[in-house]
Amino acid sequence: MSDRLGPPLETPLFGRVALIGLGLIGSSIARACQHRHLAGTIVAIDQDPATVARVTALGIADRATTDVAEGVRDADLVVLCVPVGACAAVAEAMKGSLKPGAIVSDVGSVKASVIAQVQPHLPEGVAFVPAHPVAGTEYSGPDAGFATLFLKRWCILTPPEGTDEDAVERMRAFWSALGSDVEVMTAQHHDLVLAITSHVPHLIAYNIVGTAADLETVTQSEVIKFSAGGFRDFTRIAASDPTMWRDVFLHNKEAVLEMLGRLNEDIALLARAIRWGEGDKLHDLFTRTRAIRRGIISEGQETPEPDFGRRRDGQ
Amino acid sequence: MSDRLGPPLETPLFGRVALIGLGLIGSSIARACQHRHLAGTIVAIDQDPATVARVTALGIADRATTDVAEGVRDADLVVLCVPVGACAAVAEAMKGSLKPGAIVSDVGSVKASVIAQVQPHLPEGVAFVPAHPVAGTEYSGPDAGFATLFLKRWCILTPPEGTDEDAVERMRAFWSALGSDVEVMTAQHHDLVLAITSHVPHLIAYNIVGTAADLETVTQSEVIKFSAGGFRDFTRIAASDPTMWRDVFLHNKEAVLEMLGRLNEDIALLARAIRWGEGDKLHDLFTRTRAIRRGIISEGQETPEPDFGRRRDGQ
Repeated sequence: MSDRLGPPLETPLFGRVALIGLGLIGSSIARACQHRHLAGTIVAIDQDPATVARVTALGIADRATTDVAEGVRDADLVVLCVPVGACAAVAEAMKGSLKPGAIVSDVGSVKASVIAQVQPHLPEGVAFVPAHPVAGTEYSGPDAGFATLFLKRWCILTPPEGTDEDAVERMRAFWSALGSDVEVMTAQHHDLVLAITSHVPHLIAYNIVGTAADLETVTQSEVIKFSAGGFRDFTRIAASDPTMWRDVFLHNKEAVLEMLGRLNEDIALLARAIRWGEGDKLHDLFTRTRAIRRGIISEGQETPEPDFGRRRDGQ
Repeated sequence: MSDRLGPPLETPLFGRVALIGLGLIGSSIARACQHRHLAGTIVAIDQDPATVARVTALGIADRATTDVAEGVRDADLVVLCVPVGACAAVAEAMKGSLKPGAIVSDVGSVKASVIAQVQPHLPEGVAFVPAHPVAGTEYSGPDAGFATLFLKRWCILTPPEGTDEDAVERMRAFWSALGSDVEVMTAQHHDLVLAITSHVPHLIAYNIVGTAADLETVTQSEVIKFSAGGFRDFTRIAASDPTMWRDVFLHNKEAVLEMLGRLNEDIALLARAIRWGEGDKLHDLFTRTRAIRRGIISEGQETPEPDFGRRRDGQ
């Protein structure tokens, strides 16, 4: 694994890195930082004492604490890996302890709201470089993380206007060292792009799984048994962390509702085509969508193996 | 592979099996029949001469022909593996050549329509046992098939009232030998269950992929790059065979539109919860849906590996 992520650096990119929130993403960053020696010291901060204990047992940080103010002290890089709704409170808690010249970053799936929550709290001389690694799995918590989570995945940086260029370049180097391709765009554009590539797909998946569970004419046992017909593909992202996703929707409301509106217009057209037997319209769409998947596969963002390369239980 | 499917039978279940349509499903049945020696002779019938040539080259049938009437002659079992919209024409073409005592079956994803299309054409003394193996991949054609496609997947039989019980039992034995669990239900109930576990998920997936491709504010290149945020999960089933799926929607219109209506009601509620910041409603749903996935995994219909166990290109 470490080969593929690249060898450890001789000199770490940052002296002290503080990670706040050691869930799937935070713990994956910790592991990757260890593998590649990106930090002189890794400090893990989590409000949950059980997580702090688990991180200590896993040995994925040099120090672990529940105390934000103490944990960020002397850190050269602080990365918020908490649900986006918690960013303001974390920023408030750490603001008095940040070292001049430190970089603050995050990993939130929504960027304009995080900037609005965090930036007002940051003292002069601390740079804020918001980041969003477009990577994850349906599992949560410090045990779910792994060092290659970000390998060959995109990380989007959304520095507000006037952000120190050097800080942006250091974060680009950091995410490159984690194996990611890095792109820079505005927070507003990010929130629109991710609404369609991530937020609305999650909403739709949660919704279809919920609807299927509530039918009076089809039993839940039947839904489960016959899920290989397509339904089960939706259940993976509908098994993602509930708190993280609640916050995403509440903090990217406009873009999500806008994209959902477009989706509804298009589904109304499809429903009409079905009702009136317009097979050509259906066939045309179904042919176009095949091409999109080929693009995703050829860009290395998806496996070409049939059925995602799924293995069957017990095989 | 053949181990897991079970050893070859000493005596085949059927003397001569004719498969009509050698796509993903038909060619998988042919391969599994060979592996397990379920047929004395396998006859492959396809309207496309290129497919007939390919089947011959692959060696997955004893004979291959474009002629339905000739191909089904003397067959003890005839399985229609064509898009559901083509069933009436195939039934019409074969009706004069069916052997008395033969069983006719199919693999269509819709059952009431297939029964209505096929049954009127069948002569006295020929049993019709409609079947639907709930299995597949996003690939099409004779090269896409494999012998274990049906292993640990459900196959649903929907014999019309009055169907010969012995014929039903023989089809149960046939699908069990292909590795499937078999369930019997009415065609009407099947069409409702599959509308929610398969048809509507496909429609939603086609729709979201289509909507994403058509945005003027987000480029197609961005959709592809950042698809790992969730979108790419939808592209797999939206890459399924366009003709097969056009026919499914046209032939299960009522159940699909009914289930789509329910989905739309639920999505309107979710949109309202987002607009009004009702985080608890979102969190409750997102917690319930996690449980459904656990059920699917514990029933062996899904892999517990994170991210479907996807491998990344080149790794």
